[in-house]
Amino acid sequence: MSDEVKSTNITWHQADITREDRERQNGHRAVTLWFTGLSGSGKSTLAHAVENALFERGCRTYVLDGDNIRHGLNKNLGFSPEDREENIRRIGEVAKLFNDAGVIALTAFISPYRADRDKARAIAAEGGFMEIYVACDLSVCEERDPKGLYKKARAGEIKEFTGISAPYEEPTAAELIVDTGKETLEESTAKVLAMLQERGVIK
Amino acid sequence: MSDEVKSTNITWHQADITREDRERQNGHRAVTLWFTGLSGSGKSTLAHAVENALFERGCRTYVLDGDNIRHGLNKNLGFSPEDREENIRRIGEVAKLFNDAGVIALTAFISPYRADRDKARAIAAEGGFMEIYVACDLSVCEERDPKGLYKKARAGEIKEFTGISAPYEEPTAAELIVDTGKETLEESTAKVLAMLQERGVIK
Repeated sequence: MSDEVKSTNITWHQADITREDRERQNGHRAVTLWFTGLSGSGKSTLAHAVENALFERGCRTYVLDGDNIRHGLNKNLGFSPEDREENIRRIGEVAKLFNDAGVIALTAFISPYRADRDKARAIAAEGGFMEIYVACDLSVCEERDPKGLYKKARAGEIKEFTGISAPYEEPTAAELIVDTGKETLEESTAKVLAMLQERGVIK
Repeated sequence: MSDEVKSTNITWHQADITREDRERQNGHRAVTLWFTGLSGSGKSTLAHAVENALFERGCRTYVLDGDNIRHGLNKNLGFSPEDREENIRRIGEVAKLFNDAGVIALTAFISPYRADRDKARAIAAEGGFMEIYVACDLSVCEERDPKGLYKKARAGEIKEFTGISAPYEEPTAAELIVDTGKETLEESTAKVLAMLQERGVIK
């Protein structure tokens, strides 16, 4: 807080509103829920299900996923290693801004590299980043293949496809693991909500 | 809205939460207030003063300015023409995400080029973008010189400084003009709030 006079006609300077102020206004903590897992593991579906449950409880939330990021903020990024890293970097920075604004950010990207996820964690507020590993057997993801991407990857039409021709580095210290191949969406959603209560994010 | 079954173990699909849902939750519309003007014109100070007033009314808001953007999301951008354009493009995209999340976004950047500001307007929701020209005589801005930048620009230590050695393209159709060289901060803030009421953003 500064009471420095920044301009000749400004005689008062209010303190900026902090994340804590906004958390009080919203009645919950503002954290990032970082969903990571293979294509087809159900990250986005689960993130939206969690968001729906939180919205019904009156929480402020926002899901960052391919639909609103790849066609907007990150539309100038491709799939080279550098671009993938920059993709995740920007998402981490935006999630941080949302947290600062008092909003629970839910990110749903494959984010296959541990180093990239750790960077997103590193810029978040202390205790404000929760990695949720959406584990699901590759065979199940490939059977679902909601966008037909595995089929194309197997046919060699997509190069460097995570799980097929590019690595997925499993989280080693995720705050939560859900297995969407064995749990129902309701069960996985309930596990996330229970974690949020245990960690004092929501009441 | 789709009721397509996207995965074998997902038996229901809730509709995603829309901006309109969030606006109802928050009790106000979610728009972008785009403050533009010379360095030292008071954009950030005014944006924060407006945010304070809106927060007191229970609104959800967030100010995007140099403090939280240049050191984070846009820290890999310099001041070349391409980087300046990309800087404003990303800010416009992030403001749009905040609006989608139900939050009033206030952006406080010089944003000297009309074309860049118009692009930010173009991606916003219909009627959801309000350009606020923070007009202030160059001489007043230079006298204030809160960061000592004008002094450096006059000394040639900063190249392409807006207003000195690089152009500022005045808005031709701003939704609001405030003159911080003639108005007090309270007066300028009141003008912004009045506009928001007139346009049905807040009650």
